[in-house]
Amino acid sequence: MFKNVPLDGFYHLIGHGSCVLVTSGKGKKINVAPIAWNMPVNDEPPLLAIAVAETHYTAELIKETGEFVVNVPNEELLKSLMICGKVSGRKENKFKKAKLTPVTGKKVKAPLIKECIGYLECRVVDAVTYDGVVVFVGSVLACGARKELYDGYWITEKAKTVHHLGSSFFALTGKRFKV
Amino acid sequence: MFKNVPLDGFYHLIGHGSCVLVTSGKGKKINVAPIAWNMPVNDEPPLLAIAVAETHYTAELIKETGEFVVNVPNEELLKSLMICGKVSGRKENKFKKAKLTPVTGKKVKAPLIKECIGYLECRVVDAVTYDGVVVFVGSVLACGARKELYDGYWITEKAKTVHHLGSSFFALTGKRFKV
Repeated sequence: MFKNVPLDGFYHLIGHGSCVLVTSGKGKKINVAPIAWNMPVNDEPPLLAIAVAETHYTAELIKETGEFVVNVPNEELLKSLMICGKVSGRKENKFKKAKLTPVTGKKVKAPLIKECIGYLECRVVDAVTYDGVVVFVGSVLACGARKELYDGYWITEKAKTVHHLGSSFFALTGKRFKV
Repeated sequence: MFKNVPLDGFYHLIGHGSCVLVTSGKGKKINVAPIAWNMPVNDEPPLLAIAVAETHYTAELIKETGEFVVNVPNEELLKSLMICGKVSGRKENKFKKAKLTPVTGKKVKAPLIKECIGYLECRVVDAVTYDGVVVFVGSVLACGARKELYDGYWITEKAKTVHHLGSSFFALTGKRFKV
């Protein structure tokens, strides 16, 4: 399903700014949340950052375990993404509610999402809080993408990643081109 | 040309992950660089982050002045963006070379770019270095967008922001829709 992406090219998976689904926790205590606020930080070593409200269950679980996974959804998962953004994982099993399947990763205990088109397994190397929002910087330990949608770069006309414009507005990426 | 965007909605300008042009410096000592690695950090107070290689002229100028501007380019500026990414501002006047016009902002001395479709004027509130890359966190002091392309959210089918897939590959955003 997923093919491995070399770590030194990890930033190709998220550098174009798609909204992602961040999974956290381990065992039965797991959660998933949509995070539009994410970016690569370094390519060598591979580092990325996500911004998470301090009070959210995701921040709590990441602090507990020191790990998280960035999963890249596509157009087909938009409804799931909206569901994950509306309820708290403290109160409901969001995987079940959003029809997302947690699967075991290679390097961390937080689950990958089977239905997503890419993943990045991360270990926290820094966490800085800015007025109630935690910026978690993660070292990317493993990453992958769906074979048919990625050839070193997203084939965006097929991958159709989702980009959050604010509120419930989104746009998808169009055809890939070279400048 | 630009209409003001309320500060509490600043993240609508960059939350969808477009590649931006960051301007820095003041007076005649100014620079412009494409930065795909950017994200909102907080909405209240309005904070955003950009990741910049420590050795780049942009990082030097931001450290000197404590200010920068995030400018949002569209499809028409792709060539300019590529030029800005290939030469160093220490050696050449990139504005001239890329045919970009620096104009005076309201709150900071770093220039806005006349040809861009949106801008966010920032004052540095934190800078953390991760293995040679500086994450500058900026407080957004003023921001704006082109009237005809923004109605509280980007009208992406007109705004056509550019999303960096890696190397010289890009995708544009498609039509805006509501979930």
